[in-house]
Amino acid sequence: MTIKIGILGYGNLGKGVECSINQNNDMELFGIFTRRNADDVKTLTNAKVYNISDIKNYKDDIDVLIICGGSATDLPIQTPQFAKDFNVIDSFDTHAKIPEHFENVDKAAKEGNKIAMISVGWDPGMFSLNRLYAEAVLPEGENYTFWGKGVSQGHSDAIRRIDGVLDARQYTIPVDDALNAVRSGSNPTLSTRQKHIRECFVVAKEGADKEKIENEIKTMPNYFADYDTFVHFITEEELKKDHSGIPHGGFVIRCGKTGLRKENTHIIEYSLKLDSNPEFTSSVLVAYARAAYRMNKEGMKGCKTVFDVPPSYLSIKSNEELRKELL
Amino acid sequence: MTIKIGILGYGNLGKGVECSINQNNDMELFGIFTRRNADDVKTLTNAKVYNISDIKNYKDDIDVLIICGGSATDLPIQTPQFAKDFNVIDSFDTHAKIPEHFENVDKAAKEGNKIAMISVGWDPGMFSLNRLYAEAVLPEGENYTFWGKGVSQGHSDAIRRIDGVLDARQYTIPVDDALNAVRSGSNPTLSTRQKHIRECFVVAKEGADKEKIENEIKTMPNYFADYDTFVHFITEEELKKDHSGIPHGGFVIRCGKTGLRKENTHIIEYSLKLDSNPEFTSSVLVAYARAAYRMNKEGMKGCKTVFDVPPSYLSIKSNEELRKELL
Repeated sequence: MTIKIGILGYGNLGKGVECSINQNNDMELFGIFTRRNADDVKTLTNAKVYNISDIKNYKDDIDVLIICGGSATDLPIQTPQFAKDFNVIDSFDTHAKIPEHFENVDKAAKEGNKIAMISVGWDPGMFSLNRLYAEAVLPEGENYTFWGKGVSQGHSDAIRRIDGVLDARQYTIPVDDALNAVRSGSNPTLSTRQKHIRECFVVAKEGADKEKIENEIKTMPNYFADYDTFVHFITEEELKKDHSGIPHGGFVIRCGKTGLRKENTHIIEYSLKLDSNPEFTSSVLVAYARAAYRMNKEGMKGCKTVFDVPPSYLSIKSNEELRKELL
Repeated sequence: MTIKIGILGYGNLGKGVECSINQNNDMELFGIFTRRNADDVKTLTNAKVYNISDIKNYKDDIDVLIICGGSATDLPIQTPQFAKDFNVIDSFDTHAKIPEHFENVDKAAKEGNKIAMISVGWDPGMFSLNRLYAEAVLPEGENYTFWGKGVSQGHSDAIRRIDGVLDARQYTIPVDDALNAVRSGSNPTLSTRQKHIRECFVVAKEGADKEKIENEIKTMPNYFADYDTFVHFITEEELKKDHSGIPHGGFVIRCGKTGLRKENTHIIEYSLKLDSNPEFTSSVLVAYARAAYRMNKEGMKGCKTVFDVPPSYLSIKSNEELRKELL
């Protein structure tokens, strides 16, 4: 008995899920659902493609539906909508709106007796887990999260919207001095500017005013104004050659104290170095699809997050194997 | 309603638990149980001390009993014995014997309708969790565990048993070249000798044959023969001054591939840098005591490991707070 997976949305994330399912022998891909004309979509693995309007016809064929849309407009609608008929997973990553999203999805999933796992990926996701574990184990201390080096899609898009910009790629880079201060155990207070720098590779349109573009980037509120921002103008060819990947990663570090007089310091550090942000996120989604399937089989329902899932539910291995091989 | 904790065994680990309970506002220490004469034991926090023979009188007063004995002879007997009457936690760390220990403890805990959590700490424990999560997320890859820099009690004891040795301290140290090879994503095959070196600080008795001691250490099977081992003779004063701490730590690293043709590489790294090995282990035990209490309150019973525990059960925070603050 394999776990049958449906993919909703076929961008970078959906493609990553398609590849990841191939690496998990207890799963098979039922098909991909798209808003586009199904015949126009060519898949990486010759997977079947369906139009999203037909999805309810397959509700008994799909064990878990992995929703691969965006957090801004897709997931707030899609996840509650499909949680009534399917076990679903999403990677909703607008941290501030997670409580609201949770409530909406929970209601729908409970109505349908389904499991809906939200905010799965690496942040939120693996990073969240590490923040929780570290804080639970060392209650007196401080959590630090650093992102990068990696491409921020949102910041790249913000630059592209500037007049005179043809294309752009923005890298978020943690500041070494800040990382080292945290690792030293000094529990420093760090400003936004002290934690990360932003490096931008920009292709300007012919004749565009580069000085003006650079100034617009550096002073853009929320996105860049609070950071040390470095802008490089490059050609379209250079952008394609040197900046076509979607790497990312980061660090979750906790420094905590123990002992009667807090005399002992402990540093817990978790880090990711990812060649492909969407493929890694997809891999996390697929592992949690296994957990969602099992939890629902056991009669559980409602909205869940990575905090609610016993780690063993993620693994293809039996509990006996896990204790023998990994404990 | 606070969670009432009993401590069984009052060595470094028991003292660590005593201090850790002070850092967790939802817990209180009921008392310490010892094989010694209770009146002879002075505690760090003026905790009550009882003789172990009286422990059954307090079975309704203690929510979770944290068993702080050794893995060689104490825990294989104590954990099954007390799991009939108490929710218990231990730090059983003889990896090869975990399946057997699990079976014995599971039977006892189920008889008593109690939760018994075994092999809690950092390895087994937090390191095991990281091996599992990383493998589940990146099925095609390799796990690497490195220990140190840190004091190995077992190896220090082995040196102390050599004729002519007054005292000794052994540090396990991961080899930088091996760590870097793993981090490079090359998935190297590493021998025991390539992964760790062993550094020994030895106080010899007056007139002892140091060359003979050094040779006995370096050729000791299992403990040292398979490693590059460095021996330094120092004075008793130097040992006290420079080597009285019990630091430890290490690294769990997984390198895995994703993509249709496995073209993308991802590195997951978890590391610990601990001033005090027993105090950190104690802190993990205490967090899992909270989980054991909650799981038993929900009607669960039997032997559990860190793999079976939803992360949220470890935290003093509510699920709403966790989603808002840490997800």
